[in-house]
Parts: sequence; C-alpha cells; structure tokens
Amino acid sequence: MVTYVQKYGGTSVGNVERIQAVAERVSRYLGQGHQVVVVVSAMSGETNRLVDLGRSIAARPDVREMDVLQAAGEQVTVALTAMALSARGHPARSYLADQVAIRTDNSFGKARITAIDTERLQADLDRGVVPVVAGFQGVDDEGNVTTLGRGGSDTTAVAVAAALRADECQICTDVDGVYTADPRIVANARRLDCITFEEMLELASLGSKVLHPRSVEFAGKYQVPLRVLSSFEEGPGTLITMESNSMEQPIVSGIAYSRDEAKVTISGVPDVPGVASGILGPVGRAPIEVDMIVQNTGADGLTDFTFTVKRDDYERTLELLEPVRQELGARALSGDNRIVKVSAVGVGMRSHAGVAMRMFDALAAENINIQMISTSEIKISVVVDERYLELAVRCMHEAFGLGEDKVGEEE
Amino acid sequence: MVTYVQKYGGTSVGNVERIQAVAERVSRYLGQGHQVVVVVSAMSGETNRLVDLGRSIAARPDVREMDVLQAAGEQVTVALTAMALSARGHPARSYLADQVAIRTDNSFGKARITAIDTERLQADLDRGVVPVVAGFQGVDDEGNVTTLGRGGSDTTAVAVAAALRADECQICTDVDGVYTADPRIVANARRLDCITFEEMLELASLGSKVLHPRSVEFAGKYQVPLRVLSSFEEGPGTLITMESNSMEQPIVSGIAYSRDEAKVTISGVPDVPGVASGILGPVGRAPIEVDMIVQNTGADGLTDFTFTVKRDDYERTLELLEPVRQELGARALSGDNRIVKVSAVGVGMRSHAGVAMRMFDALAAENINIQMISTSEIKISVVVDERYLELAVRCMHEAFGLGEDKVGEEE
Repeated sequence: MVTYVQKYGGTSVGNVERIQAVAERVSRYLGQGHQVVVVVSAMSGETNRLVDLGRSIAARPDVREMDVLQAAGEQVTVALTAMALSARGHPARSYLADQVAIRTDNSFGKARITAIDTERLQADLDRGVVPVVAGFQGVDDEGNVTTLGRGGSDTTAVAVAAALRADECQICTDVDGVYTADPRIVANARRLDCITFEEMLELASLGSKVLHPRSVEFAGKYQVPLRVLSSFEEGPGTLITMESNSMEQPIVSGIAYSRDEAKVTISGVPDVPGVASGILGPVGRAPIEVDMIVQNTGADGLTDFTFTVKRDDYERTLELLEPVRQELGARALSGDNRIVKVSAVGVGMRSHAGVAMRMFDALAAENINIQMISTSEIKISVVVDERYLELAVRCMHEAFGLGEDKVGEEE
Repeated sequence: MVTYVQKYGGTSVGNVERIQAVAERVSRYLGQGHQVVVVVSAMSGETNRLVDLGRSIAARPDVREMDVLQAAGEQVTVALTAMALSARGHPARSYLADQVAIRTDNSFGKARITAIDTERLQADLDRGVVPVVAGFQGVDDEGNVTTLGRGGSDTTAVAVAAALRADECQICTDVDGVYTADPRIVANARRLDCITFEEMLELASLGSKVLHPRSVEFAGKYQVPLRVLSSFEEGPGTLITMESNSMEQPIVSGIAYSRDEAKVTISGVPDVPGVASGILGPVGRAPIEVDMIVQNTGADGLTDFTFTVKRDDYERTLELLEPVRQELGARALSGDNRIVKVSAVGVGMRSHAGVAMRMFDALAAENINIQMISTSEIKISVVVDERYLELAVRCMHEAFGLGEDKVGEEE
C-alpha cells in the first residue's frame, strides 16, 4: 500500500465538474488500494475575488484580516471535495489548517510552516477515511489564521507529505509534467520523466509556473518524492528526484525563461569600496528583490552598475535610486523594462565544459544581442531584448538537442 | 460605559458600501465611549450560493461538510468588517467560532450553543479592541465546524451578549423595529417601543422575519435585553422586555400573519382512541412539523381530523397519509395549500375577556370565513383563505385600535 498526498490547484477545482473529476481521480487511487490525503487550493479566481473585496474596503487592509478573508477560499473547496468523495462512497473529512494544526509563524500573508500534527490525519488513513486538507493556510501560536502566500498550497502538500512520511507528493495541475521548454514556444519540447530538485528549483524561480520554489525547497529538505502531473489526464508526469540516477544525464535538462524582468543601470559611478551596498541597500530595504547583478569597471576609474528586478518593481526602483545617484555623483540612471531572461538549466553542465559557449554561439547565430550574463553551477542565464524571447528559447533548445526527435542518443 | 453586542444580518453586510456603513455605525457608538462587540452574518445571497454549490456536488451532501462550506460565508464578512473598522482607526479583530470557543453540540446544520469562552472577547474590550465575531457558526467538542441553522446569527449575538453580560444586544436589520402589523399591508401600522419576549416569540414563530424564535427564547432565558433596530437609519427601534412595564398595556400588541401554511384533512375517521396518533405519528416521524390541530366529532361516530403544516411539506404530507387513510378506513383525504394564518398577539389578552369575540366579529363584518381557530394565552390565530390575508390583517388591526391615529388613549 502506497500513501500519496495529492495537491489539486485552483484550476483543477475551478468548478463543480472539475471537483467531481478530482474525486474520480482520487477514487481511482483508492480503488487500487492506496491511501490518499488530498490538499486543495481555492477555486480559481476566488482568491483574487476575495483580495479585491478586501482592497475595496480599505486601501491598506489589515494584514491579519486579509488572511482570514483569503482562507475562506480553501474552506469552500475542502468541503466540496470531501462531499464529492463521500458521495462516491469514500468516507472523507475536510480539515482547515487549525484542525490539523498546520502551525506557522505569525507573518501574515507569507507565513512559514513550523509544524504539522499528523495524529488526526494518520488516524483517518488508518480507518479508511480520506482527509481533505485546506492548502495555503495555517494557524499561528495564538490561534490566528495565517496564509502562506501565493503557491502556498504546494508547500502545504509537501509539508503534509513530509510529516506523514508519505511515499509520494503529487502536484496535480493543468500541465502533464515538466518540459524541456515551454511547448507553446517550442513545438518539439519534450516532457521530462524526471528532473532533480536543484534543476526544478532553478526552473521554478525562473517563472516556470509549475511549482512554487518554496515547495521544491521544502521537498528537497525533507526528501519528499515529488511528482508533477495532470489533474485531467492519465500519465506519469515528471518525478522530481534527489539526484540524477542516469549515468547518461543530458548536459542541459531544459530551457526556461522569465518575462517578469527589468534592468536598471547606474553609470559613471566612482569605483570605490561600498558603492554596491550604497546602491543595493535602499533597494533591498524597500524590499525589492534583486536578481542578476553585473558591474563593469571602465578605464576612467568609473564603473557601470546594472541589476535586474521584477518588472512590477521597475518604476519604484528608479524612484528609489535617483537620490542615490545624486549622492554618489553618478553620471546617469537608466533602465529597460522590455527585457527577458532565458536560461539553460541542468545538473549535467557541472561536469561539462563549453556549455556556455554552445549557448552563446547559438544566440549569436541568430543575431541575438546578449545584454547580461549570469551563471551558476547548474544554470546559465542571459538577458536579451524581449522581442527575441521565443527565438532565443528555440535556438537554445535546438542547440542542446532537447527536442523530441533527438531523444534517442541523449537518454 | 455601556457594552453592546450588535448583530448585523446579511442585508446589512450585503456589499462593500454597506459594510462601510456598518463600520460607521459601530464607530458612532465607540465615539460615545461605549464598548461594542460586532456579530455578522454572511453577505446576503452568499449562504444560498454556497448551499447550491454543495447540492450541485451531491444530491445529499455530507452534513459535516455542508457546515464547513457554509461557515466560509461569515468568515468573509468578519474579516471585511474588522478591516473596515481598523481603517477608521478602531483596532478590531475578527473571530471565527473556534477562536472564541462558541461551543455547540454536534448536530450539524442545527447545532445548539452550549458554552462561550469570553476570555478573549473581554480582554479585547478591556484594551479597546472591537471583536468581530462570526455569527451562525460553532465548534463541537471534537473541533468540527458546526452551524446553528437559519437565523443562527441572532442566536450567536444573544449568546455572546449573555456570556459577556452585555447591557444590550442589538439586532440591526433592514427594518427599524417591530410593528403592530406589516406596514406593507396596513398603512397606519405603528412601530412598538417595546414588546415582551413572549409576544416576540409568537410573532417570530408566525413568520415575522425580524427575529429568529431561538434567539428570542435564548434572550428570555438568559435575560438579555434585546433591541431590534435599523442598520441604516437612526432610531430607538423596539426593545424586547421581560415583562410589560406599563399598567395600561394594550390588549393586543400586534397582528401577525404567515403565508407559509397548508391544511390537510382526513374525514370520516372512526372516532376511536389512538386515531390522532395514528395520523400524526407518520407525519411527525417524517419529520414534518405540525402546527394547528382541530378535531370535530360528528353525530355518526365518525370524526374529521384537520391540521396545518408548512406549505413546502404539503405534498409530502398527502403522500404519507394516503396509506394511513386506507388503513384507518377513513372516507377521504383532502387538503388546501392556499390558506394563511392570521393572529392577534398580546400579553394584555390574558386579563381581558372578549378578545376572541372582537376578532371574530371584525372578520365576520368583512365576510371572511374562518376555517380553523387556535388560541393560546397570548395569541389567537385563525386560518383563512389566502385571498383574504390583507383584508383580515387590516380589519383586525383596526378592531384592536392599533393604528397610528388611535395611539393616545391606549398607551
């Protein structure tokens, strides 16, 4: 007997018919003699509707109350999902965060899970009851309702799986796995049978919508086998594993991209110690998340300092930096919010030289100008003009032989 | 300093603007130096929407889960109301039933409150925080979410007021008090300054939508001063008191009616012991609520047995009784679902003879045929054809001198 934790996102429980389909899917697993714990999100659109309600009440709604408000979304879906299971003859019980003690700190809106009490869940599983747990929400030490932030339901599922020592945590979603590239851009993109946590983490943080980085990190930390698969179709999905188990690991596993990027440059800054922190300090305290950072020193003792932020933070970053520019006596403050980031990701590149060159060559062959470069052990990212996004993804996918036709010799 | 518990129903919190108006109203009380605990229902229409969702999932949705589902409605309004108060500079905290331990039995869908822990509420009041409590919901001994049934928010408010020994429980609604008759039917109907619990109980059970009978009963039992008043307009409303404090108590306080009635007659039943229970047994076990019961014995040793049920139960009652009729050898089973009940209510009638006669005379003068009569210490009800409803209410209102013009000598 295998114990699964299955998480269904907002689209998968977006209406009555889909909730029935989820119940059918769970029912199939139960019919095969498995144990299942279900974790569900709010119906798609519901969290946004609730947030909008809150914002229409107050420009800066009370953070504690925003969490109470949003948590109502999952409350509806756990009840409906448990009903749908019961109606199929599978005893089921819904649980809100406080009922299974999904304890978090008290950071409303972005709480972190600290502990889960598995007693009730285990007792239910032992007597053949399907627990249906509300994702995304928690309870702090004082009994206040908290929420984990967007993508929090994935984290709930992984945390429940870790606490129960479940055999597998399945993230059931509207795609049937993780692909070598976005299939909407690359026609012959291929579903990966497995991918490592590290690779998944890089892909997730690159805006690949499949899994939230926190949940991947959590799964890696607690060694929870994680699988991404379709809520609607049969299929093996993509297993996220601790380590690559193939000797013939491909160099690059996939090509990822993010449109949510903007870059800001302060040019002609005196090249003295403390300049970087003088620039990034105010940004970090805002808090605005900084991603890539590049500094070039010129011959004149002046330096150009460029970094990227999320596109939504672009205007505010420029506003914050204008006084900094004046203070530093820098020549100019400029930026561009029409850039994208494209990356090649793969644990295989650790042991292969020349990956970066192959990538740059491919881009050059298409006349795509590289604006910034950033590398890590398992990722090489470039910033390019947004008009080249699709072309860059396709030529890199081709350059690393990731397409359906060329699978044979790579795996 | 006076402590109020103020309950706002679904219409009063039906949209963002109304919730803002509720916050303004609460703010005025706070500005006068009073303490306020707010109890809110779900936004109007929301509970029905959730119930419909549940019913679209399963023909007989799991009762435990229906309560989890419905409780999401109040969760939204407590959060929004607390936000609206906070935005006005009044610290406020929302509480779900389990957070203030509104303990109930485990009768899902119609749970009864057994205890309320006032520690948190009192602590909030002591430090100037406005608690905003979810009406209608509770938590059983095992931590399951329960609901109190329709009208349950009134009961929550009264129970909170009783537990806190509040000075007054205000039921804020879309009418500005209790009237001598429905103002839509009787043009000169008059708002009552006060009414006794007993009278209110009779009025509420007669379909007067102002207050739920359970909450009135609860308030009477725990001697909570209860006031019905408008959420939208200033005004004293109607105070519901333990005993009439006026020596000059009017004989009749008001005329009530209920359209939600149907009558069923089994005629030609052998008049032997056990017939009544033979007929009412299957109905009561269904369970169908029976209201008025009349039995007439004829000269031939046969009897006609008539009773009233809610109009929704009419068809089912006839179905249930057809086999009973055959078994008893009764002549006929008939019924009428186009009847209404009209009642005169008043504690004053206890000490006055001739109230019934005055009422029957008034109806006779209008040629309204009385089909059934039922009396209690403080109420006389008649069943009449539904086409006479308005006429009956108006002529009775006139007969007891309840109108605006004749107030002088009666009070």
